[in-house]
Amino acid sequence: MKLNFIKPVYAHCDAPCGIYETNTMMYAAATCTRMIEKINELGQFDNVEKQANFCRYVAIKEQSAQKVKDELYLLWSDYFKPEHLENHPDLHDIFWQAAKQAGKVKQTVNVAECQKLTEQIQNIAHIFNSTKK
Amino acid sequence: MKLNFIKPVYAHCDAPCGIYETNTMMYAAATCTRMIEKINELGQFDNVEKQANFCRYVAIKEQSAQKVKDELYLLWSDYFKPEHLENHPDLHDIFWQAAKQAGKVKQTVNVAECQKLTEQIQNIAHIFNSTKK
Amino acid sequence: MKLNFIKPVYAHCDAPCGIYETNTMMYAAATCTRMIEKINELGQFDNVEKQANFCRYVAIKEQSAQKVKDELYLLWSDYFKPEHLENHPDLHDIFWQAAKQAGKVKQTVNVAECQKLTEQIQNIAHIFNSTKK
Amino acid sequence: MKLNFIKPVYAHCDAPCGIYETNTMMYAAATCTRMIEKINELGQFDNVEKQANFCRYVAIKEQSAQKVKDELYLLWSDYFKPEHLENHPDLHDIFWQAAKQAGKVKQTVNVAECQKLTEQIQNIAHIFNSTKK
Amino acid sequence: MKLNFIKPVYAHCDAPCGIYETNTMMYAAATCTRMIEKINELGQFDNVEKQANFCRYVAIKEQSAQKVKDELYLLWSDYFKPEHLENHPDLHDIFWQAAKQAGKVKQTVNVAECQKLTEQIQNIAHIFNSTKK
Amino acid sequence: MKLNFIKPVYAHCDAPCGIYETNTMMYAAATCTRMIEKINELGQFDNVEKQANFCRYVAIKEQSAQKVKDELYLLWSDYFKPEHLENHPDLHDIFWQAAKQAGKVKQTVNVAECQKLTEQIQNIAHIFNSTKK
Repeated sequence: MKLNFIKPVYAHCDAPCGIYETNTMMYAAATCTRMIEKINELGQFDNVEKQANFCRYVAIKEQSAQKVKDELYLLWSDYFKPEHLENHPDLHDIFWQAAKQAGKVKQTVNVAECQKLTEQIQNIAHIFNSTKK
Repeated sequence: MKLNFIKPVYAHCDAPCGIYETNTMMYAAATCTRMIEKINELGQFDNVEKQANFCRYVAIKEQSAQKVKDELYLLWSDYFKPEHLENHPDLHDIFWQAAKQAGKVKQTVNVAECQKLTEQIQNIAHIFNSTKK
Repeated sequence: MKLNFIKPVYAHCDAPCGIYETNTMMYAAATCTRMIEKINELGQFDNVEKQANFCRYVAIKEQSAQKVKDELYLLWSDYFKPEHLENHPDLHDIFWQAAKQAGKVKQTVNVAECQKLTEQIQNIAHIFNSTKK
Repeated sequence: MKLNFIKPVYAHCDAPCGIYETNTMMYAAATCTRMIEKINELGQFDNVEKQANFCRYVAIKEQSAQKVKDELYLLWSDYFKPEHLENHPDLHDIFWQAAKQAGKVKQTVNVAECQKLTEQIQNIAHIFNSTKK
Repeated sequence: MKLNFIKPVYAHCDAPCGIYETNTMMYAAATCTRMIEKINELGQFDNVEKQANFCRYVAIKEQSAQKVKDELYLLWSDYFKPEHLENHPDLHDIFWQAAKQAGKVKQTVNVAECQKLTEQIQNIAHIFNSTKK
Repeated sequence: MKLNFIKPVYAHCDAPCGIYETNTMMYAAATCTRMIEKINELGQFDNVEKQANFCRYVAIKEQSAQKVKDELYLLWSDYFKPEHLENHPDLHDIFWQAAKQAGKVKQTVNVAECQKLTEQIQNIAHIFNSTKK
């Protein structure tokens, strides 16, 4: 799996003035993917230890998908300003779809859904990066 | 202060199928207002107890404003579906502005900012309610 | 499922002076009920996705039952004052039984236990409401 | 400051079957006391570092007082059973008063209020211990 | 199961000056053991209630093992000072091994792993106690 | 302020097999620095809004310094293995000193203390990176 990193930036925020970046959501999405891979590697749940670890992987996936959502919400509502909407008129929809996709990752055990989420995050990281130039 | 309540509704969600409502965010916004009133009632911070309670009220306001944001995000990304956007094309912007206003409530000690947030929430409650008919 | 709502009230609290209400615990109890319904709708756990969602529903039920407990504790110890005990001499026992019932909801997967909890909360909401007149 | 320790006990609980003890609430109450002592040791808030640490001590006191409440609620609703009420008919009121006192510790900066809370906890620890014989 | 208790001590900490003790981590390790015992008592997962409680016990074990880790980290980095290392040159390694063992307890459903963790905690409690003389 | 980023790596962990990286602790340390800068920019606390924001910045600094500690602990106990100690015999001490320095950042309002923490994290990031070759 390849992860792309984009440098964080200072910007007005709730503090105001926190530090915005898109790496944290990318790590969280990568953890979702990894948990599904781990679930698939378990194969048959033929002993109590496998069953217990299955529960644990599902819980970690849930928390990580929620972390993706939290990071998306923060960046969307705190970093982006009305002037950014001019260059990115579909910004709201991009974040809305990504947040919905993170919800989908919670409900499924499917690497393809994680892959779709990762691509949406990469697109958001690209937009975010373009606003800093 | 008058609080308007709207009945919750079953809808598809991350579970999927949680229970959506707008009262929780209204309570949280009301708590922000109340904390600012309490701060104003302190008057001069002329003893350590008043100073300590000032810190406490600020912290409760911060948590409550964050709760407003969390509830806004949840309703926006989990409850609302593409078909709702047809009747409410400015839905994204309404939630974005409300989330930004909750951030403003964090940064200020001003009842007028809470009042503005409360009105935005009432509007959202109205839209939410209209989708259930 | 029918949910009854009762208007919140200002009252002395830890802040002091928060906003008390019984709707939040009612939503949380409703979520417990809904999670058990979802578990029952799963039928046979014949694929990994159903098994994962089973874990998720159990976890959401657990959190929601704890939320009921937290809301019960808060209302009991912060809102109610010695004078209320005069009109409601069994108040302590009513809250104790409801908190124990919320624990029962954690340990079981039985809609009847949720129903019993919901009725206890409705009784508490009724008492709470009567103190505000 | 003297802290009394009482051995934990297995008992039916939400799990069911957790481990009950009264030491955790005693530590949390001791932390409240210590924070107030630290506040008093600050003297004049004549520099930004003292002011910042004042805020920190208030926040730690708040969290610790809430921890006392959480531990009280847990012991009251999960450990104690109807048969305990026969020997301790005022059990509910003892926990209610202690929870209210923990709220008082949040609102004040007064070692005497912490001392009162500590004595209430010691009484509860004594009752708890007596039920295990 | 036998639990050993050691009296807490005042010491410099992040506040600075909290209250250090090793009982909390001992309770948390005991809860891990108890959860594995409960899992073993379930026997066959032949109904939905047993399956749900299995998930709950696994989740409580996970949280309790994390609590052990958090308490270990706090004691290691906040309580112990360079002068303690002179008498306990292997202190870092003792905490590192215990934290790793708590991770092992998360990943397994084996009372022997909990027993090993408990012994490591008892050793740490012994060292901690020796520093207070 | 310049932030250095190092690519994350798959490694055995509590799951087991999470995703380790040092960027999250670097962001958290950067937030501590930023909060102290914001505090210094406030100048005189001559109105209630400045006083409220002072409390908020202190609280955000506290949380961010704790986040640094949590990330340090996780990397130290979960990622690093006995074989790493051969090449880095002072690894334990490096993490111990960094965790202590994060505690120092909590207790002070001094950019120099954040700078020292940042340098320690950069050193850790360097070591972490060297283990992945």
